[in-house]
Amino acid sequence: MYAEIVASGTELLMGETQDTDSSYLGARLPALGLELRQITLVGDDMERYVEVLERSWKRNPFTFTTGGLGPTVDDVTREAIAQVFGEQVYVDGQQRQVLIDLFKSRSTEMPVRNIKQAWLIPSARAIPNRMGTAPGWWAEKEGRVIVAMPGPPRELYEMWEGQVVPQIKERVKGSVVLTRTIKTIGLGEALVDEMATEVLGIQNPYVGTYAKPDGIYLRVIARGSTEGEAQALLAPVDEKLRRIFDKSVWGIDDETVEERVGTLLHQQGLTLATMESCTGGQLADLITNVAGSSRYYKGGIISYTNELKIASGVPAHLIETHGAVSEPVAAAMAQAARMRLNADLGVGITGVAGPEALEGKPPGTVFIGVADAKAAKASAYRFPANNRGLVKRRAVTSALLALRGHLTSAV
Amino acid sequence: MYAEIVASGTELLMGETQDTDSSYLGARLPALGLELRQITLVGDDMERYVEVLERSWKRNPFTFTTGGLGPTVDDVTREAIAQVFGEQVYVDGQQRQVLIDLFKSRSTEMPVRNIKQAWLIPSARAIPNRMGTAPGWWAEKEGRVIVAMPGPPRELYEMWEGQVVPQIKERVKGSVVLTRTIKTIGLGEALVDEMATEVLGIQNPYVGTYAKPDGIYLRVIARGSTEGEAQALLAPVDEKLRRIFDKSVWGIDDETVEERVGTLLHQQGLTLATMESCTGGQLADLITNVAGSSRYYKGGIISYTNELKIASGVPAHLIETHGAVSEPVAAAMAQAARMRLNADLGVGITGVAGPEALEGKPPGTVFIGVADAKAAKASAYRFPANNRGLVKRRAVTSALLALRGHLTSAV
Repeated sequence: MYAEIVASGTELLMGETQDTDSSYLGARLPALGLELRQITLVGDDMERYVEVLERSWKRNPFTFTTGGLGPTVDDVTREAIAQVFGEQVYVDGQQRQVLIDLFKSRSTEMPVRNIKQAWLIPSARAIPNRMGTAPGWWAEKEGRVIVAMPGPPRELYEMWEGQVVPQIKERVKGSVVLTRTIKTIGLGEALVDEMATEVLGIQNPYVGTYAKPDGIYLRVIARGSTEGEAQALLAPVDEKLRRIFDKSVWGIDDETVEERVGTLLHQQGLTLATMESCTGGQLADLITNVAGSSRYYKGGIISYTNELKIASGVPAHLIETHGAVSEPVAAAMAQAARMRLNADLGVGITGVAGPEALEGKPPGTVFIGVADAKAAKASAYRFPANNRGLVKRRAVTSALLALRGHLTSAV
Repeated sequence: MYAEIVASGTELLMGETQDTDSSYLGARLPALGLELRQITLVGDDMERYVEVLERSWKRNPFTFTTGGLGPTVDDVTREAIAQVFGEQVYVDGQQRQVLIDLFKSRSTEMPVRNIKQAWLIPSARAIPNRMGTAPGWWAEKEGRVIVAMPGPPRELYEMWEGQVVPQIKERVKGSVVLTRTIKTIGLGEALVDEMATEVLGIQNPYVGTYAKPDGIYLRVIARGSTEGEAQALLAPVDEKLRRIFDKSVWGIDDETVEERVGTLLHQQGLTLATMESCTGGQLADLITNVAGSSRYYKGGIISYTNELKIASGVPAHLIETHGAVSEPVAAAMAQAARMRLNADLGVGITGVAGPEALEGKPPGTVFIGVADAKAAKASAYRFPANNRGLVKRRAVTSALLALRGHLTSAV
């Protein structure tokens, strides 16, 4: 069953606010058996809004709108739905009372303009908003539904989970969509595409490939009238792809590299320490984004100066001989990190984030070391040097993947 | 002059990738005199893509597409434009050579599929891609332009700034939009509104206020037929707002808190060291995102364990008496960081990122210390605990703002 999202707000078009509501909804529709065809962002522009909304309503069983439910003149979602349905808005007595009580509970008078939030049309009923003053609308005509929800994420999330999802489940039966994402590393997109040829181009299950900073993703989308039917379509392709890509697969579905590494460390009962130079703490940041990382992550040193590298256990002669940005120093940093912090594993990153060259090495030059009780090894990387932030990001992703490689080969 | 954006990729509809390209472009179009009417996200769905693209092309002088330029079968942007223009694609010899040389420089053979990226149509010319294999398209028919750009941000940004903007400036004359963003801290949105009353509600220049994690932003948008005219409208309001908000202003336009802090440190010839617990290196990461930060940033310690805090100079008795998550320990961490790394200033962050409580303190509890040669002070913060990543982010922003406060009051 098809659906579209229409998000409104001039700030979305000005790039001042990122439309996270649509991706929140987009990620949740398939499991409800709804297939999202399109997301449209419009400004606080009545004419354009009505045009987009009408087109969506005419061809989709479900249209979801976000934003435009506030009390100001810019908030035109109710007017737009009324116009699309050709109906007149009226002040609903019950909703009016809900608002008055709400403001009373905040011990303030209801501002006159908020009466807008008590509006309804004959074909719409109000959806309670537990987080704010703006009720949503469940508007339905000719068997097709427009669900209007507020833009502020915490209001949207609560209304979606608590009020909208149950009503959708009531309506949508006999259509289940299952997805599987297989994350590979070390292969180019075109090569992945070639390797997966036999399953590409099929309609159901549908397989797509996507290039990401941490490798090429394959995504399988299977549709069935029941969970079992969708599963029966998904499983063989899932297994086939895992067999084809085998060791190149580092993660499944929404698992991140840092989560994968965390799981492996925890499973193997190993602890980790880091010493970062050019990535300036970003590796530690990602590692500690994982809840429970304190079980295996002991901490790190951001050795932005050579003095600190040496004070932390990197032999000074290595820096003198090879330079701070070198394979031996990366290996020594990894070793020093695990020694200094009493960890089983150590990772060291040294490089040139840019924009200036360092020790005659161009921006994008990065060395990553991994050390355990047996040995310390380092590898050289060369990333596109256009952007300091991206050099850091790629170095960190590569370090996590190197760590993952070490943990899996060690098994 | 009107513009629309069409972003393609099933991953955008599945909520797997946030469409940051559109907000990047949306924020930059006004300054080029282009008014964005609509952003549409479609899947890798030829029929829908062509429908949306054709509608946009027919009514806008400029349509920008992002994504769908890869080498795989579901990269259909070229096919969609060809169909909208009713033209046939052909392999361009020059582009083919560019690709072959590119792969040669990576010492690999060009996969057969990549030949797609050498496609052109009579009405399109290739836009060089310095960051990847996919050239963009500048496609123009009946005086209306479709600019096709790759989806990966680093490729899009470089192509936009380096290749597309100059060509748009060539075309769009007689309409210049200038913007100025003034970033304030320490004032509520309602108060900011009140203080700015006299300039709010004017149409040109238009002033808007936006609540952000690092304070309230005021955005001035001035339109003129020439740069000078727009500037003449912008300048007085800009000056007035800077005068009104004075010491509450911490940054202008794209300047970030970490850049502001970096500028202040550099101007005052001071060095900085950090010790982070709950933020796990994110503060250091942001500080080192600033080019040239090695001039003032000496490095940091991520003391994820109490042993490391103590080994780094935090008095053990403070942790025993007050707990690791406490004001005294935050101050001691700041002091220890500057002592241990021989820096003029030290910052210490300790807190509970969540989801679990720590030492009986709930997630969102954070203490931030700032130390100089004279003293070490710490403050308590309490952030919404719903999301581990957001607690870290808010803590880091607060630490940077505290540092900025210290550096400006010290002046």
